[in-house]
Amino acid sequence: MEKRELLYEGKAKKIYATNDKEIVWVQYKDSATAFNGEKKAEIGGKAVLNNKISSLLFSKLSEKGIGSHFIRSLSETEQLVKKVDIIPLEVVVRNVAAGSLSKRLGFTEGTPLAHPLVEFYYKDDDLGDPLLTDEHIHLLELVTDEEKNVLKEKALVVNTVLQELFLTINVELVDFKLEFGKDNEGRILLADEISPDTCRLWDVKTKEKLDKDVFRRNLGDLTEAYETILTRLGGE
Amino acid sequence: MEKRELLYEGKAKKIYATNDKEIVWVQYKDSATAFNGEKKAEIGGKAVLNNKISSLLFSKLSEKGIGSHFIRSLSETEQLVKKVDIIPLEVVVRNVAAGSLSKRLGFTEGTPLAHPLVEFYYKDDDLGDPLLTDEHIHLLELVTDEEKNVLKEKALVVNTVLQELFLTINVELVDFKLEFGKDNEGRILLADEISPDTCRLWDVKTKEKLDKDVFRRNLGDLTEAYETILTRLGGE
Repeated sequence: MEKRELLYEGKAKKIYATNDKEIVWVQYKDSATAFNGEKKAEIGGKAVLNNKISSLLFSKLSEKGIGSHFIRSLSETEQLVKKVDIIPLEVVVRNVAAGSLSKRLGFTEGTPLAHPLVEFYYKDDDLGDPLLTDEHIHLLELVTDEEKNVLKEKALVVNTVLQELFLTINVELVDFKLEFGKDNEGRILLADEISPDTCRLWDVKTKEKLDKDVFRRNLGDLTEAYETILTRLGGE
Repeated sequence: MEKRELLYEGKAKKIYATNDKEIVWVQYKDSATAFNGEKKAEIGGKAVLNNKISSLLFSKLSEKGIGSHFIRSLSETEQLVKKVDIIPLEVVVRNVAAGSLSKRLGFTEGTPLAHPLVEFYYKDDDLGDPLLTDEHIHLLELVTDEEKNVLKEKALVVNTVLQELFLTINVELVDFKLEFGKDNEGRILLADEISPDTCRLWDVKTKEKLDKDVFRRNLGDLTEAYETILTRLGGE
């Protein structure tokens, strides 16, 4: 596989074309950002950790029959994925109240939710990734109602698998954000990454935060937290 | 009917008990507030205008078969209404993009929407009246799914009637906020007020704002705008 021109540079990844027009080359970055880019830092080792954790989680999901854009890891910081058009919706699943849900609805952080909650946010930096209701999604014509239900169902299945997986390593899956894309035949595929950048992960017993909140809230060493996740998942 | 003790004081109204436990006495206030109470002023004449406009609109709705808590006007600034427990949801209907919808979704103010949009906000000053998705409403157990659908249907019927009514007086009903309550038998009734405080009303031709945005955005004389609405509606 040959790496070609840069197609897109996001906050945490660069995407390059390859000699196969249906496959792109993902390069994870050491950049950490929060609060819609207002807080920024370079954190050595983050790219390696997120690439490894994300590759591992996509592989675990694949073993459970949940496909994604992930093809294979290329190096410590790179992976090959199927090229998809990203749907501009962030699909958030929450098992425990934290972050913006606590702020929005007044739930004390750490309150377990009776059922997993699915939220959709509009992936638009200029608008600050606003929360969307079903009617907003319909109005914006971002997906059809049917596609929205597919996204929701897929997100809930991912939640069930990941929740179980993390519990075996004494980690509570508090919430996470997924992105989906469409391949060249219009099929919806899980895409982007699944890592401590996109999940809230707490140690089951100590409730220690092992995710990007360590960076957002200045709680200590981010790479140490991410390494804990990778090691417990059996990676190295 | 006898006026008894003060039951509740809101930003724009005081509610008193009466000698009939199923009826309360509403006193409109001259206070104007915006941005969750951050901007405040006393505007002489506002109480009279909102009481008259709201009484008139509730009467017009009643003529079209849409019941509300409104019983009758008592004085220039007072009315009698059925006592209800207010459901802590603000039901917003939008026909044209403006205000928070424009900010949230990036629609230019004044863009007509393909269909009326219904939104629910959590009536909670401490939280800043946040937008809620259907799943949030379910989680918070504010109403049942069935009741939520009733609120939505009622709001859309009110929209149809008011839109038509305002069009006959050359006013565009851009958006508005409704509140509902439950009477002592659990029936859902339209409540609160319908006035230029709770609606966006634009002159059809000039697009002049004839509502609380005059206050929010310092666009001129609020009472003059509200008087225009009252006069065009045939009130005095």
